[in-house]
Amino acid sequence: MTVSYNLDVSSVSCLNFFKLLFRWRGSIWKSVANELALWLIGYYAVFVVYRTLLNKSEQGRFVEVAQSLDKALDKCVPLTFMLAFFVTVIVDRWKNIFANIGFIENVAISIATIVRGTDEKVVLSRRTLVRYLVLSQVLVFRDISLKVRRRFPNTDSIVKAGFLHEHEAVMLDKVDCNYNKYWVPVNWASTLLFQLHKDTDITPALFNTVWQELKLFRTNLALLCNFDWVPIPLAYPQVVFLAVRVYFLVCLVARQYVDLNRTSSVDYYFPLLTVFQFVFFMGWLKVAEGLLNPLGEDDDDFECNFLIDKNIATGMAIVDQTYDVCPPMLRDKFAD
Amino acid sequence: MTVSYNLDVSSVSCLNFFKLLFRWRGSIWKSVANELALWLIGYYAVFVVYRTLLNKSEQGRFVEVAQSLDKALDKCVPLTFMLAFFVTVIVDRWKNIFANIGFIENVAISIATIVRGTDEKVVLSRRTLVRYLVLSQVLVFRDISLKVRRRFPNTDSIVKAGFLHEHEAVMLDKVDCNYNKYWVPVNWASTLLFQLHKDTDITPALFNTVWQELKLFRTNLALLCNFDWVPIPLAYPQVVFLAVRVYFLVCLVARQYVDLNRTSSVDYYFPLLTVFQFVFFMGWLKVAEGLLNPLGEDDDDFECNFLIDKNIATGMAIVDQTYDVCPPMLRDKFAD
Amino acid sequence: MTVSYNLDVSSVSCLNFFKLLFRWRGSIWKSVANELALWLIGYYAVFVVYRTLLNKSEQGRFVEVAQSLDKALDKCVPLTFMLAFFVTVIVDRWKNIFANIGFIENVAISIATIVRGTDEKVVLSRRTLVRYLVLSQVLVFRDISLKVRRRFPNTDSIVKAGFLHEHEAVMLDKVDCNYNKYWVPVNWASTLLFQLHKDTDITPALFNTVWQELKLFRTNLALLCNFDWVPIPLAYPQVVFLAVRVYFLVCLVARQYVDLNRTSSVDYYFPLLTVFQFVFFMGWLKVAEGLLNPLGEDDDDFECNFLIDKNIATGMAIVDQTYDVCPPMLRDKFAD
Amino acid sequence: MTVSYNLDVSSVSCLNFFKLLFRWRGSIWKSVANELALWLIGYYAVFVVYRTLLNKSEQGRFVEVAQSLDKALDKCVPLTFMLAFFVTVIVDRWKNIFANIGFIENVAISIATIVRGTDEKVVLSRRTLVRYLVLSQVLVFRDISLKVRRRFPNTDSIVKAGFLHEHEAVMLDKVDCNYNKYWVPVNWASTLLFQLHKDTDITPALFNTVWQELKLFRTNLALLCNFDWVPIPLAYPQVVFLAVRVYFLVCLVARQYVDLNRTSSVDYYFPLLTVFQFVFFMGWLKVAEGLLNPLGEDDDDFECNFLIDKNIATGMAIVDQTYDVCPPMLRDKFAD
Amino acid sequence: MTVSYNLDVSSVSCLNFFKLLFRWRGSIWKSVANELALWLIGYYAVFVVYRTLLNKSEQGRFVEVAQSLDKALDKCVPLTFMLAFFVTVIVDRWKNIFANIGFIENVAISIATIVRGTDEKVVLSRRTLVRYLVLSQVLVFRDISLKVRRRFPNTDSIVKAGFLHEHEAVMLDKVDCNYNKYWVPVNWASTLLFQLHKDTDITPALFNTVWQELKLFRTNLALLCNFDWVPIPLAYPQVVFLAVRVYFLVCLVARQYVDLNRTSSVDYYFPLLTVFQFVFFMGWLKVAEGLLNPLGEDDDDFECNFLIDKNIATGMAIVDQTYDVCPPMLRDKFAD
Repeated sequence: MTVSYNLDVSSVSCLNFFKLLFRWRGSIWKSVANELALWLIGYYAVFVVYRTLLNKSEQGRFVEVAQSLDKALDKCVPLTFMLAFFVTVIVDRWKNIFANIGFIENVAISIATIVRGTDEKVVLSRRTLVRYLVLSQVLVFRDISLKVRRRFPNTDSIVKAGFLHEHEAVMLDKVDCNYNKYWVPVNWASTLLFQLHKDTDITPALFNTVWQELKLFRTNLALLCNFDWVPIPLAYPQVVFLAVRVYFLVCLVARQYVDLNRTSSVDYYFPLLTVFQFVFFMGWLKVAEGLLNPLGEDDDDFECNFLIDKNIATGMAIVDQTYDVCPPMLRDKFAD
Repeated sequence: MTVSYNLDVSSVSCLNFFKLLFRWRGSIWKSVANELALWLIGYYAVFVVYRTLLNKSEQGRFVEVAQSLDKALDKCVPLTFMLAFFVTVIVDRWKNIFANIGFIENVAISIATIVRGTDEKVVLSRRTLVRYLVLSQVLVFRDISLKVRRRFPNTDSIVKAGFLHEHEAVMLDKVDCNYNKYWVPVNWASTLLFQLHKDTDITPALFNTVWQELKLFRTNLALLCNFDWVPIPLAYPQVVFLAVRVYFLVCLVARQYVDLNRTSSVDYYFPLLTVFQFVFFMGWLKVAEGLLNPLGEDDDDFECNFLIDKNIATGMAIVDQTYDVCPPMLRDKFAD
Repeated sequence: MTVSYNLDVSSVSCLNFFKLLFRWRGSIWKSVANELALWLIGYYAVFVVYRTLLNKSEQGRFVEVAQSLDKALDKCVPLTFMLAFFVTVIVDRWKNIFANIGFIENVAISIATIVRGTDEKVVLSRRTLVRYLVLSQVLVFRDISLKVRRRFPNTDSIVKAGFLHEHEAVMLDKVDCNYNKYWVPVNWASTLLFQLHKDTDITPALFNTVWQELKLFRTNLALLCNFDWVPIPLAYPQVVFLAVRVYFLVCLVARQYVDLNRTSSVDYYFPLLTVFQFVFFMGWLKVAEGLLNPLGEDDDDFECNFLIDKNIATGMAIVDQTYDVCPPMLRDKFAD
Repeated sequence: MTVSYNLDVSSVSCLNFFKLLFRWRGSIWKSVANELALWLIGYYAVFVVYRTLLNKSEQGRFVEVAQSLDKALDKCVPLTFMLAFFVTVIVDRWKNIFANIGFIENVAISIATIVRGTDEKVVLSRRTLVRYLVLSQVLVFRDISLKVRRRFPNTDSIVKAGFLHEHEAVMLDKVDCNYNKYWVPVNWASTLLFQLHKDTDITPALFNTVWQELKLFRTNLALLCNFDWVPIPLAYPQVVFLAVRVYFLVCLVARQYVDLNRTSSVDYYFPLLTVFQFVFFMGWLKVAEGLLNPLGEDDDDFECNFLIDKNIATGMAIVDQTYDVCPPMLRDKFAD
Repeated sequence: MTVSYNLDVSSVSCLNFFKLLFRWRGSIWKSVANELALWLIGYYAVFVVYRTLLNKSEQGRFVEVAQSLDKALDKCVPLTFMLAFFVTVIVDRWKNIFANIGFIENVAISIATIVRGTDEKVVLSRRTLVRYLVLSQVLVFRDISLKVRRRFPNTDSIVKAGFLHEHEAVMLDKVDCNYNKYWVPVNWASTLLFQLHKDTDITPALFNTVWQELKLFRTNLALLCNFDWVPIPLAYPQVVFLAVRVYFLVCLVARQYVDLNRTSSVDYYFPLLTVFQFVFFMGWLKVAEGLLNPLGEDDDDFECNFLIDKNIATGMAIVDQTYDVCPPMLRDKFAD
């Protein structure tokens, strides 16, 4: 489920900052907690080894290693650049995916407005057009979102949920095409729409209006598939994710407090600034990891199942329940 | 209310720079003032403790802590990168929200031009079309802007303001849909438009022209809802906002002037450069915080209530007051 | 007036670099000159005070202050980041404003092609359509550009220039709308176009073609108004402009050459590199300041008055002078 | 073949990180392995020469050289900036190329919906329209993708694959145009479509619908050609690719561990951090190199041959196999 | 001529890197060579003066100057930031210019498909439509590209090349408009198209299809003019170009090897790393300089003359030679 926090930031103030800070779902705290715990365990393991198990000369050598690592680390691992630019690419992609996720309202309103008639067949046609489009969305989402796949593990579950009739499932199955078949329900819808065009005297210009909306809906879904088919080249996230982890792995040694005589340092017992750095960089990385597959299962990922339910309910309400409903007109108050 | 300053920067000069600098509403000064005061209080608290309450050896330890913090701080908190890239993402989002905020002129002019007739019913239809669209905008704005919510706390207030008739409110309420119902007035408008198409001999091509404008208006509003539904993942602002605050929290200790013998330093009594740094970074952060929810209550946020009033007044003026008004034509001066 | 230099850079060579460098209008030299002079005066004032008016011990304290400032300055004022990202935002905005500034050609050609007829009334209609659109542009430009405002300080001046007839001015004035009225002439044009559609047998599809162009022209102007209504939030330019000025203010002290014994230094009499730095950063800032309001009065700002004159002249030439003009066809040479 | 890894990153966790990390195809490991091996050979060659073949004074000079190189290297080769910005440009281009790669579904569905008829000639026309479009894609891909060129080395191979008939090949060959002829099959398709428009009573509005899709498909292919015709100016990748290689070439000497007395250093036998640096920077560079020509032969490049096969199979299935297929309508479960 | 190198980078490997590296036309080597030679001459001039002409005490002062310059140089000239962000802006502009450069195919295919008829007049009309559009392109290119200007120095040369007939030249000349007249041939084309619409029974919807393509072609050309009219504000390239030159001018002194006793340094005789730096930064700058005016005369600039020839040849081939050509249909192999 996406995490909404807009009301918390409706104005800029310290208070709102704290409200924002201490949320848990989808927060930096939740995403960083595990790895920070792991890292701290590692840190104190090295800590104990260095301070208690090593003898003087080994300690000396450890100090040399730690210091030389610490000195060269930042030069050799360009964390900030990599993270900043990678996050920019990922955020851009995330926006594009969301922009194409598919909302039914436009196509449903165009159907309700242009496909006229209240006899049973036309009503059913309008409902079926909406159902085919959402069905197409279900088929696409099953392949790109684990959550939707879990809800609809097989064709039967789709039939049971009502998006598909059994005889349609058979027809869908029979289509002889070795590639994905997301287009089949849209093709049905398009054919049905053309029949309505012929049967109910929809003019070509208005047929076209509905058809363009229908096509746009399909194109959006097709773009989702394409984003799934061609992700950011694997090497890019690998190099970034690896860089961050290697950086902090090296820090386990490099950031040990080695000068055991100066006990007053703030880092003597707890590597305060390194922990801060861990939280900031790892939190930044988690933003990237979370956005990399926005159709996944994180707190912040798009709620595909919710969207499917919303689309079918809203679509049906538009084309059937509120079809041809328009309140009687009264004079408004703005006329003076 | 948005803060306009374009006239101040119509030409590049020192004078204009000062004009720009010493504005208060929406300014860096206003947004930074509080937190700077808080920070200075904290700073002088540490200042007093360090200089008067600590004994020599404690002071020595304090110096060590301060110096080690100061040395590692910039390496560990990548402020500039985080702020720069985060602000870029936020500015982009802010632009998109503004681009979709919904202006009535195009759809109103298309209605006025294409829906012809001066008998009462057609005139009322034109007015009602505009009213339904602005009503839809009101419904959307109520859910995404605190200011509009405060103006229209419930359906009654919308009825009282004239955007909704009571019988329409009842019909709106009866629509059986568990999701948002912003589309209902647009659906009414679309149905009404189709009736006009049939009753007043609007050709399909021209019906389509109006319908496309109507759809565009609705799509813009839908995009606003989507921006509200799926904000920037929470962890991203959290990590940035936190980084800046932690940075300056650490500065409370790290930037203390510790060498009490060199009384001539510029930082001896007042941390001049750190205050500058605070102003610049916190000011930058405030830009980000302000833009994060541009429909909120800050000085610079979009004036949704103003826009609603402007839309209804302008829309009504276009479709009714100036309907079919065109001055008698006279020869112009450009003919020679 | 915009400054064109494309021919100077038609090929990459040292010579072209120098040609580009030694231009004055709109150049870095012109924009930086004043502030550099001011800064140098400040610099030499401090210079004289330090070297001649202070005694030894005061000089010692000055040195300490200067050195501590110099050391911390770059860490505390993130000039490069702020300038680089701010300029990116501003350049983007500048491009968008230019893209919407409104050229008449497309709408004029569509009018000339589709609104047929040579009797006086139709000819006048075509001219009037163009005039209304440019009038709308004049109204918008008056409110967002100081130069145009100065050319057209009141309605009379617009009437005198021929963009508006007196009876139109009266009608415009009578429109009862508390908000801007840029839409009024477009509404007139749209109404007039519809009358032509009825009177001269323009088919709906072709009426639509012209109407879309007309709408696009209006939408562009509306976007210009929006850019004017909602500028970049004030705090953003403030923080950037302030940072640059504070930086160089601090430099007045921090970059004094303090070691008076080493007279051989390049900085002994003239702060060469700091002056370079001033030129580069201040020049960069001036780019940002110049672009911030591209409808202002700088050398590089868009020439709104020129555009108005060009639009009315070109538009009239298209819809009247060259109406229905097409050279007799002859065989071309490309046929073999 | 593109490398898909979305399921691995459906949620953010350490485990998924490791799953992602240890993939081979298209991975950073595969792309970096060779050059890292080469570099290590070079490194140990210098290593052996320095430690065993040089005498004391030569070693002394070597140390001086190494240290002076190491000190100035990062200042003189701005790796991070160049890579970060270059990758941004390249990623943008890569996205644009992918967005224009050409999917047949939209145009095929529009053909199936609008070109009606089941007599043999119309069926064949529909199939031929799809074939011509994919043929056009084949012609374009041959010139911009080595893999497709290898599959279709000459016109015969295209004929054999069935995309082109022999008499069509002759006609294509006869077209007298010294420039590319990708447009010829689209021209055929357009002509055929117009004949269908005349023969089968397609209204102009619907003819237009199909034609726009057909044009869009061609425009996408034309954009691919343009991207091929005008690449990123050669000097840009040259300067970036060279910078990275020169950097690590210099590192062969600069990063030798020269202080032979301190044998405890982590770098004594193996330049650990420099190897990390090599992996990160070279991996980043490989991302850029891989994206520079996304129609090439790398693991991550777009699968043009697959797309051609998918387009012809899906297109044929849409316009022929499932033509006019629409399941009988039944009441759905969403009505209550 | 643009420089194509896509085949060299079809896969990522060391070999391809070298292939790419050792190209000359449009390469970094060619663009940097001259200035590097100049710089080296300057460097060795200073070199000789310092080592042979100065006496000991003058050398001492030189060392001080060189060292103080070297220390402050990178802080004072923010090369990387300026170059990186400037190149980003320039690359974006370069892409936009290329996207609007004007290809004839779409409009030609629409003309060939929709303007039917084989009698001489209609054929000539189709040819003339194409010729007018390319003529418009020639007129625009003459004003923005030096190469095209040189090919067509006056109207006569355009007439001689066949793009313009003499009587058309006279008519073009007679148009009374003080601004550019690129729109005149498009206006002729539009008028001619309308006559065809009347004479050959093109339906309004299809007339519109052609007209939109024609308009798009003109809009692209108009955008090219706009890019020429309003370049990037002069001060921006000035500040960047100047910064790079000043940087390396200062390097002439600052990077001299001053410690004459340590003869073993790698920089003793040749400033290796500074030369690398020169190549990388100057190469990066040359990318920017080359892209700044992509219609100029560099190796990488767009080939406007080639495009004009391609457009006229392809356009004529489409509307005349292959008009109404469609191969006889045969069964394809994909049916099974």
